[in-house]
Amino acid sequence: MPTPYSLYYWPDIPGRGEFVRLVLEEADVPWRDVGRLPREQGGGAEAVLAFYAGRHAGHPIFAPPVLVQDELVLAQTAAICHFLGCRHGLAPDDERGRTHALALELTIADLVLEAHDTHHPIGAMLYYEDQQPEAKRRAASFTGERLPRFLGYFERVLGHSGGPYLLGARASHADLSLFQALEGLDYAFPRAFARASAGAPGVAALRERVRARPRIAAYLASARRMPFNQQGIFRRYPELDADADS
Amino acid sequence: MPTPYSLYYWPDIPGRGEFVRLVLEEADVPWRDVGRLPREQGGGAEAVLAFYAGRHAGHPIFAPPVLVQDELVLAQTAAICHFLGCRHGLAPDDERGRTHALALELTIADLVLEAHDTHHPIGAMLYYEDQQPEAKRRAASFTGERLPRFLGYFERVLGHSGGPYLLGARASHADLSLFQALEGLDYAFPRAFARASAGAPGVAALRERVRARPRIAAYLASARRMPFNQQGIFRRYPELDADADS
Repeated sequence: MPTPYSLYYWPDIPGRGEFVRLVLEEADVPWRDVGRLPREQGGGAEAVLAFYAGRHAGHPIFAPPVLVQDELVLAQTAAICHFLGCRHGLAPDDERGRTHALALELTIADLVLEAHDTHHPIGAMLYYEDQQPEAKRRAASFTGERLPRFLGYFERVLGHSGGPYLLGARASHADLSLFQALEGLDYAFPRAFARASAGAPGVAALRERVRARPRIAAYLASARRMPFNQQGIFRRYPELDADADS
Repeated sequence: MPTPYSLYYWPDIPGRGEFVRLVLEEADVPWRDVGRLPREQGGGAEAVLAFYAGRHAGHPIFAPPVLVQDELVLAQTAAICHFLGCRHGLAPDDERGRTHALALELTIADLVLEAHDTHHPIGAMLYYEDQQPEAKRRAASFTGERLPRFLGYFERVLGHSGGPYLLGARASHADLSLFQALEGLDYAFPRAFARASAGAPGVAALRERVRARPRIAAYLASARRMPFNQQGIFRRYPELDADADS
């Protein structure tokens, strides 16, 4: 039996770790969420911090999430999702399709980073409160221009593949990640997201289709699923959302 | 004989296209730089704009650079470099090594994006001049904290692999991309880069080793190599560099 996967990610936020969790859950592989284990079992934030600070064995990583299995010490959310997807039936079988799935995963990562940067345009090291005027300007550009462009793009991808998933009949890691991104956008920017979604019905349908997949549905209903909060990537600051009347 | 690769990228900046060009040159494969061909040959900015605007055949892409070969229509710089590297001997042979190379490529992409966002913290749609105070704040965080952290990370990777390349004895696409990122950082932030590089001698040596590879050296000496300029990712705004005396 292969060694179970170990995920190292901050225990208090869904963050980028959640993209990895969804792939692990849908792949139905044995894994442990080390950051959320008790300290007595080697878990907790300190175990994750060891990776952030470079105090760990194996291939160096820049920042969590980190997936560990034997000699594999892998960071970068998109690389982890691609790796797991290719290994566990959540990616196309051919090289071209796998690379397209990776490119989609990276475009989702770009969208997620831009959503994050609405509340941290000056730097992730500073508090939101210390960059609020800048955040309002950046968020206006995100909700007004970038978000509709991204959703329109994924709608075109669905039109090209014929759906219901981004690459056609079979779900891939990119569909799971898009689901998570949409959940976060809806949490953080309910008004702007509703407005932009009106032009992307296929994307909205994909979101519900992923939510209804049996393993995903079971996971979402479990205590393992963490709600969004105000420390993560997606934060609900009403002043950064689109205006109600515009 | 396989169809030559076609790269679609803006003709006036090295930008993200340059990361792809370095891999194509080192791989020594037939390719054409469509954006820099004359309009009569189907080239120019308009050919690239068709991809940006979604007016093109095949798999939809979000933004250039795009690599096209027969049915492959691939965007996302890191995905393109990974794909070409795996196909043309510029990636490790095993799955784990390839995935580590991809993760390194993604960390380099993060560094490049953070360098870009120093001059566009509020939005890529606005002029630099309209976000200059914000740019100064963001650049201070980049040159003071992020840049040294990134270079220190790549130094640790070299220490772990034993060098001289990021993954050991053989060069991969990640080494070529790190070279290009370092060239850009040195152009944009000469003072901050010199300061941060003092703590990363292995990284500096890798840069020179890539520069001296015969195909890369020939490319850099050719008219195909585009100098950095003030419209690209890396821009030299002295007010965003570290202070001379701090």
